[in-house]
Amino acid sequence: LKAALAIATFLISSSAALADEGMWTFNNFPAQKVKQKYGFEPSQEWLDHVRLSSLRLAQGCSASLVSRNGLVMTNHHCAHACIEQLSTAQKDYVASGFYARTEKDEVKCPVLEANQLTQITDVTDRVRAAIKGLEGKEYNDALKGEMSRIEKECATSSEVRCDVVSLYHNGIFNLYKYRRFQDVRLVFAPEFAIAFFGGDPDNFNFPRYDLDVSFLRIYDGDRPARTDHYFKWSPEGAKDGDLTFVAGNPGGTSRLSTVAELEYQRDVALPANLLRLAELRGLLTDFADRGAEFKRISSPLLFGVENSSKGLFGRQQSLLDKTFFASKVAAEQAFRSKINLDPAKKRAYGGAWDAIAKAESDLKNIRRPLVYIEQGSGFQAQLFSIAKTLVRTSEELPKPNEKRFREYADSAMPAVKQRLFSPAPIYDDLEIATLTFSLTKLREMLGPDDPVVRKVLGKDSPKELATALVKGTKLKDVKLRQALFDGGKKAVDASDDPMIQLARKIDGDARAIRKHYEDNIESVEKKNHELIAKANFEIYGTSNYPDATFTARLSYGQVKGWIENGKPVKPITTVSGAFERDTGREPFALPGSWLAAKSKLNPSTPMNFCTTNDIIGGNSGSPVINKNGDVIGLIFDGNIHSLGGEYGFDEALNRAVAVHSAALTEALGKVYGANRILEELRPQQGSGGK
Amino acid sequence: LKAALAIATFLISSSAALADEGMWTFNNFPAQKVKQKYGFEPSQEWLDHVRLSSLRLAQGCSASLVSRNGLVMTNHHCAHACIEQLSTAQKDYVASGFYARTEKDEVKCPVLEANQLTQITDVTDRVRAAIKGLEGKEYNDALKGEMSRIEKECATSSEVRCDVVSLYHNGIFNLYKYRRFQDVRLVFAPEFAIAFFGGDPDNFNFPRYDLDVSFLRIYDGDRPARTDHYFKWSPEGAKDGDLTFVAGNPGGTSRLSTVAELEYQRDVALPANLLRLAELRGLLTDFADRGAEFKRISSPLLFGVENSSKGLFGRQQSLLDKTFFASKVAAEQAFRSKINLDPAKKRAYGGAWDAIAKAESDLKNIRRPLVYIEQGSGFQAQLFSIAKTLVRTSEELPKPNEKRFREYADSAMPAVKQRLFSPAPIYDDLEIATLTFSLTKLREMLGPDDPVVRKVLGKDSPKELATALVKGTKLKDVKLRQALFDGGKKAVDASDDPMIQLARKIDGDARAIRKHYEDNIESVEKKNHELIAKANFEIYGTSNYPDATFTARLSYGQVKGWIENGKPVKPITTVSGAFERDTGREPFALPGSWLAAKSKLNPSTPMNFCTTNDIIGGNSGSPVINKNGDVIGLIFDGNIHSLGGEYGFDEALNRAVAVHSAALTEALGKVYGANRILEELRPQQGSGGK
Repeated sequence: LKAALAIATFLISSSAALADEGMWTFNNFPAQKVKQKYGFEPSQEWLDHVRLSSLRLAQGCSASLVSRNGLVMTNHHCAHACIEQLSTAQKDYVASGFYARTEKDEVKCPVLEANQLTQITDVTDRVRAAIKGLEGKEYNDALKGEMSRIEKECATSSEVRCDVVSLYHNGIFNLYKYRRFQDVRLVFAPEFAIAFFGGDPDNFNFPRYDLDVSFLRIYDGDRPARTDHYFKWSPEGAKDGDLTFVAGNPGGTSRLSTVAELEYQRDVALPANLLRLAELRGLLTDFADRGAEFKRISSPLLFGVENSSKGLFGRQQSLLDKTFFASKVAAEQAFRSKINLDPAKKRAYGGAWDAIAKAESDLKNIRRPLVYIEQGSGFQAQLFSIAKTLVRTSEELPKPNEKRFREYADSAMPAVKQRLFSPAPIYDDLEIATLTFSLTKLREMLGPDDPVVRKVLGKDSPKELATALVKGTKLKDVKLRQALFDGGKKAVDASDDPMIQLARKIDGDARAIRKHYEDNIESVEKKNHELIAKANFEIYGTSNYPDATFTARLSYGQVKGWIENGKPVKPITTVSGAFERDTGREPFALPGSWLAAKSKLNPSTPMNFCTTNDIIGGNSGSPVINKNGDVIGLIFDGNIHSLGGEYGFDEALNRAVAVHSAALTEALGKVYGANRILEELRPQQGSGGK
Repeated sequence: LKAALAIATFLISSSAALADEGMWTFNNFPAQKVKQKYGFEPSQEWLDHVRLSSLRLAQGCSASLVSRNGLVMTNHHCAHACIEQLSTAQKDYVASGFYARTEKDEVKCPVLEANQLTQITDVTDRVRAAIKGLEGKEYNDALKGEMSRIEKECATSSEVRCDVVSLYHNGIFNLYKYRRFQDVRLVFAPEFAIAFFGGDPDNFNFPRYDLDVSFLRIYDGDRPARTDHYFKWSPEGAKDGDLTFVAGNPGGTSRLSTVAELEYQRDVALPANLLRLAELRGLLTDFADRGAEFKRISSPLLFGVENSSKGLFGRQQSLLDKTFFASKVAAEQAFRSKINLDPAKKRAYGGAWDAIAKAESDLKNIRRPLVYIEQGSGFQAQLFSIAKTLVRTSEELPKPNEKRFREYADSAMPAVKQRLFSPAPIYDDLEIATLTFSLTKLREMLGPDDPVVRKVLGKDSPKELATALVKGTKLKDVKLRQALFDGGKKAVDASDDPMIQLARKIDGDARAIRKHYEDNIESVEKKNHELIAKANFEIYGTSNYPDATFTARLSYGQVKGWIENGKPVKPITTVSGAFERDTGREPFALPGSWLAAKSKLNPSTPMNFCTTNDIIGGNSGSPVINKNGDVIGLIFDGNIHSLGGEYGFDEALNRAVAVHSAALTEALGKVYGANRILEELRPQQGSGGK
């Protein structure tokens, strides 16, 4: 799948970088490059408007404001969990879709948080001062402590979210200040059948015919939030060759990873994760086949598992591409040679790669206990996560902010509490299934004679234990969670809830393996990546973009097809194609609403399109905008070649995939009669702040 | 898991080969080496006796004759399918065990064939004459045609089985003549709970406490076969340090594979197979969890899937071991350099490796259609296999013997017919589950727009189609199979059975991809491996052993523990250990019979032991014998390090794992009261022919 082309990286000189490559930060956007290639130079005002009109969904997606009254556009799959959480066995909004005919019908999502990036401040000097000269545990502790300190100073209320972001792998530290919205309500979602038409077989493929959209609304004090900045709707939408911008939050890339880190991914982490996902996929497939309600309650998880499986498989294939991997090796060797030519640089930076290689080798040896005991792979159940959060907060919150685990720092607590006190339903059957699975894997991965495994299982079978825990715990009761949280360590220690007791029983082991990882591996990776980043800046400057970090980025490109096996793939599909692909059977079954509306729909309406924008997972829900800053589409996927985007960008093949804005308005009007939303999106409504 | 030690291969000089390495053919056994290391030199008479006392189970295991009346010892897991096939929802012999109190109670296994190797003849010259100067399709056709011709001449009745065996990858061709037994009856099997005590977690591990045994009997004309050669039972059994021989049929190794072939395995085949197995494992785990009968009917398949998963995972780990892989690369480079120094050798053999590398690269491109359309991964159901066999025999049998697909040559037909006409039950639920799974994977692997996928699925979902096929076919009726087989092409073409029609519909596509593979890839691999083998013989002679080929081999070694992470592992466990490991829960639950017999059992009776014998999958059921030719144990597994044995042998860590003969007699007597068997095994019973 992955073509064997040399791929531009941090290390490649900027002359090669006329490709539409890069997930650029808003404070280092290459406006001149865009002008050079496309004749349009985004102004600072333009960039600020785009930044403020874009949102991050803190659970892992991107979104955009599309009206002055807080209407938010994102993907269906970004709201899938919410839609499922608002559903019941009697009323399944995932299957039927959802439309709030009036504002009063808009329903709050139990666990969604939207972030609007209001300010970026450079704090590199302050962080560097805190970590100067340190190594290992001291380096790590100082780094995390200073980050928590900065964030706490910044986050003056729960409506303000502050994250210190490490860019270029500790090369630069920026403080991102957001306006935080935790009251996010569901306004509209089509049926899953059209949102994810083609299902797993068509996922990461193009041509495509999906209406992967949902509309949400941010609220402020129980009223729709008034938004000064938002994207207007383009009357024309995307056309072949159009210059396109995508504003969003790419989750993470590994383009600056060292060869040793890539080898660890290729040979250790990816194979292990893929095998686990494959087994879980098979299990959930049969689970869903047991009956309609089994299917309903497991569908978001199965979707996630299949989506991850396909994504990670694509990554693995790109690393297994010998030519591509050799280009990574060659680039690293060239850079190291360059450094070693200069004695001062060699002294300062020359050892960084070997130090990281040593850390990866250590990581390989502790990966299983780290992942299975501390990182949750051995205890996959929502109720266990709740128990662990209660145990951990009871231990961490009494500590000074900067001494805590980062995920329980004051700046992180609003998100923790939203999750912890979410009223979203939890289903015993699914909890037992995933907990049994993960306990079985825990035993398999660590061996039946491992002390932690013995401590956890005793003489129980995984299924017996999982059943007893899920049936025995009272943690589905949000009030109990609140009481235990409020009661702190004393309450948690005194609890006879079996899930709490399990979380307590392994907490020491989990902390020990985490400590080993952080002190001896993570700190080495960070420290030495900081050195590599410095070396890079010294040699190449900051004319390139950092790896993705699930923070605001802007990419540019154009609507453009590509050549697949010698044949051109056209960049825009039409509504008629969806009807041609319909088999009447999942996942190729158009919903009844579309079949009923067929005669009303204009078959030549553009449905989906692809662009050369450089995006990756986390960009889901990003708006595609034109140079006027108007919405012309909605990112929801990449093509199969985009999966290698984790490690590099290949403009010849890598494509972002979006819903066309015309398909959205056509469907909202003619299929769903969602006139209230259409009115709100209407271009003549207002200036959108610019 | 796999230690990074340089591993002896074909290319390593014999001076290094004092390790207990090698799966030796009976006509090239290194008796002198054994004498040198262990002071015992097996005579020709001794070797002949061992060969004739050993059996191959044609479905994929090894076994031995242990009485003059055709009593056969093998593993429980080698008879697992038979035991399940003889069971019903009301009487589950897998769970309860089976014991025929009298000869009349012995029940015929539907699909078991035992082979006794009576003669080995060298036919290298004849085969070489047929393929001389040929390449590609002509080479392959001539090779297969000549093999089928030789086999047909040899197999004078259905009681005689003849296989031409290619050794050293077409370096030597031997004709193996067997006495064939298709009437194989079940005599005794313990409960699955003790046969596979510790289940998947303990599989491929040691210390171990399994009674993985079953006793069968070969019949001849409805009476127990009289056997002149059989193994006597050792009064003492295995002791630490004992010289041990294992006679059996290792299924296959890849120690002589080229680096390009190993890379194909590491980067393409193993990852793909592991992911498929993992998903199927998850699916079957949940399927079994639906209820007792679901569990019963799926247990042999799940066992096989888990066993393969763990085995292939171990192989993958050994290829991912950088030091080990580098040793393979270095050995190949050294050998190629040696050849290239001699212009004549360079001309004759120098291009072989690159030719194979090119073939592997081509194979990568056609792997999915080959595996999914022709090799059955897209149509995993017994009923489909039956339909395909009927379609293929109707096409192949009218052809001259030497022009047929090899699996339908006259010499192969007794095995084909046994499978085709087996009365073993077939379960709709399981058939639908595996067929749905495999059709879904077919679509996933080839894509929903692939012409074959479209032809197969039409507008159906995989589950709809699988259900319609399984419910619609009449092929569970053995008489119908017989009628279609007897009616030949006319009957098959006229059949309106939906499974037959599916098999016919894709047969052309399946043949086309197979033809491409055989003509352009397989033939290149064979031809060039023949060249490499010749080069090897010229430089090193035939003082080494060939890769395993599921034919009779003899290995030598000793009872010996090893050092694991700095700690010694003792080589022999005792019965008391099984009771200590018992949790009362699967897979660590001792059966009621053992708990009831606990006070009678001598706790210090040896239970399992490990040896340095070089074995691999297919050796399951092999007897472990001492220098007297007496049974001291029963091979049933290898330790975790043995999994890398696919590619090389590391005497420091690789161990074969066996049931101790004393545990067998202790359990037969005190747990099962199987005195009829004990009597038959009694050492004083006879001389065993020697």
